[in-house]
Amino acid sequence: MKREDNEVIRVKSKPAGIPTAENFEVNIETMPMLQQGQILIQNEWLSVDPAMRGWLADANNYASAQVGDVMRSLCVGTVFESTARDFSPGERLIGWFGWQKYAAVAPAAVVQKITARDLPPSLYLGVLGLNGVTAFTALDKLGSPRAGETVVVSTAAGGVGSCVGQIAKAAGCRTIGLTSSNEKIKACYEEFGYDHVINYRTDDVNGVLRETCPDGVSVYFDNTAGSISDAVMQNLAIGARVIVCGTASISTWDPPPMGPRVNRILLTRRARMQGFILSDHKDTYQVYVNQLEKMVRTQRLKYREHITDGLHTAVGAIEELYRGENLGKRLIRLPM
Amino acid sequence: MKREDNEVIRVKSKPAGIPTAENFEVNIETMPMLQQGQILIQNEWLSVDPAMRGWLADANNYASAQVGDVMRSLCVGTVFESTARDFSPGERLIGWFGWQKYAAVAPAAVVQKITARDLPPSLYLGVLGLNGVTAFTALDKLGSPRAGETVVVSTAAGGVGSCVGQIAKAAGCRTIGLTSSNEKIKACYEEFGYDHVINYRTDDVNGVLRETCPDGVSVYFDNTAGSISDAVMQNLAIGARVIVCGTASISTWDPPPMGPRVNRILLTRRARMQGFILSDHKDTYQVYVNQLEKMVRTQRLKYREHITDGLHTAVGAIEELYRGENLGKRLIRLPM
Repeated sequence: MKREDNEVIRVKSKPAGIPTAENFEVNIETMPMLQQGQILIQNEWLSVDPAMRGWLADANNYASAQVGDVMRSLCVGTVFESTARDFSPGERLIGWFGWQKYAAVAPAAVVQKITARDLPPSLYLGVLGLNGVTAFTALDKLGSPRAGETVVVSTAAGGVGSCVGQIAKAAGCRTIGLTSSNEKIKACYEEFGYDHVINYRTDDVNGVLRETCPDGVSVYFDNTAGSISDAVMQNLAIGARVIVCGTASISTWDPPPMGPRVNRILLTRRARMQGFILSDHKDTYQVYVNQLEKMVRTQRLKYREHITDGLHTAVGAIEELYRGENLGKRLIRLPM
Repeated sequence: MKREDNEVIRVKSKPAGIPTAENFEVNIETMPMLQQGQILIQNEWLSVDPAMRGWLADANNYASAQVGDVMRSLCVGTVFESTARDFSPGERLIGWFGWQKYAAVAPAAVVQKITARDLPPSLYLGVLGLNGVTAFTALDKLGSPRAGETVVVSTAAGGVGSCVGQIAKAAGCRTIGLTSSNEKIKACYEEFGYDHVINYRTDDVNGVLRETCPDGVSVYFDNTAGSISDAVMQNLAIGARVIVCGTASISTWDPPPMGPRVNRILLTRRARMQGFILSDHKDTYQVYVNQLEKMVRTQRLKYREHITDGLHTAVGAIEELYRGENLGKRLIRLPM
């Protein structure tokens, strides 16, 4: 095997709020040497996710990326070389391989082998990966949607949100999406099948919800927090479930942002508000991937990808996500 | 039967915040006539509860008391006369009989017959009634405390809080109480068996919790909301359950009071925050009363009562509750 250079993105500094290109550096390094029991992977696809802001923040978080680290990321790659049992060159894997061309990892970094040959591998970073499985697991376990109930989704056209809307629709729910541009509204109606879409930048969210949901919102899948969510909370039905999956609209938690207290709403509506992190649900990951694959194959789950080419396009991509410029799963494609 | 006067407290006006004596009027009225199928009850004990503020408020609420109504209240009384099947003179009942000497009610107003002869009937308005059953049901169903976990209770010496602390302790939990005076702190340690008590008026709640709960708070039984709860929320353990049972520290919800947003804490701690109202759990009411009776009989559940005599002492009693002046269940005793 010929040793070649590795292109690597490392964390250069901690962002104060949303991570920008300034917080990263692109280095040319030596291709990693394989230790006994490791797998050398050549990355094909890198993921960009809103959760990365949390990993980079200094605040309490469930995962982290420190200064000097290769930026933490889920990737799809191919085994280049392996001294680990059960992994052979040419196999395609999803795992925590980071923003780099080559990664030498322990088997624990592997999330899943991709065995399906009929589906594009990049889907395993989006609709069949973190996004789809987050949407399905959180909606199913924390939201328990019942047919006929109204499900509201913030960032309705986003990677997670668009899956939530379609999965809820398939479960017989009425779906209402919150999003922010005409292009996204169009996609919400035409591709993701929402029954109603609200532009949170121009519409009176509270007023529209009050009018369109006289019986209240039974499930709120919240990816934003902030004033958008304040308006939804006003419209919770008795026994509502609020899934706290992301806080995209809040640029910093230090100092803690203020908002209307939720206690009285939770009390009078006997509502439940619960945080969700996918890594707590590893035991059911594959179950939900199987369900999602079925939905994709039967065209009941549509998706969009926003792809840019080359490792260097990753550094500004988190910031773009938070500016709401993407429609669909944000991916970086590396040359093979 | 000799008809005599009825003493009645009616709602005179809606309070802006905490209800005061001004919001009620004490009237002398004609004793109610019994309609077919009704029960005429002579009240012995009237309850005073923090929830009354919510019933009187104009805001969305699960129960209400409108201007002109007899003030809604749970009471213990004796059947004086009955044309309803299954109720006979002399039987002792708990029910929604209101702040008045005599009440003519349909059987639906009755919560329970008191059959135990060995326990004081007033307990069925406190430790064996709304307070105890609220504490047990909410802690058990929403809190699911496990032995060894830390349970924090706000208004730790109050009617509900003192039961929560003792029930959690009996379940093998470590209990930490938040309260506000030396007298209450003493009662928390000596009667209600808390492992640690914090004076939220003089102590740094956040600092003390951080020090005494390095592994975090697994269950927070919240009767106050506000800044006390903000400090507890900072210390939630992974997978914590927050039971929203009351909001005693908030004097008005119009306009909505602001506080630090909870989304990030709920997300990073995968915590759950849920509203509780006892009337959703009628099916299990008697099950929990039976458990509580056992605990009282074996002295594992201690209680205090704060009793005043005469209907007229009720009008200022809600305000007193919110000033935190009571230690134990607030009751009004009527002459028999």
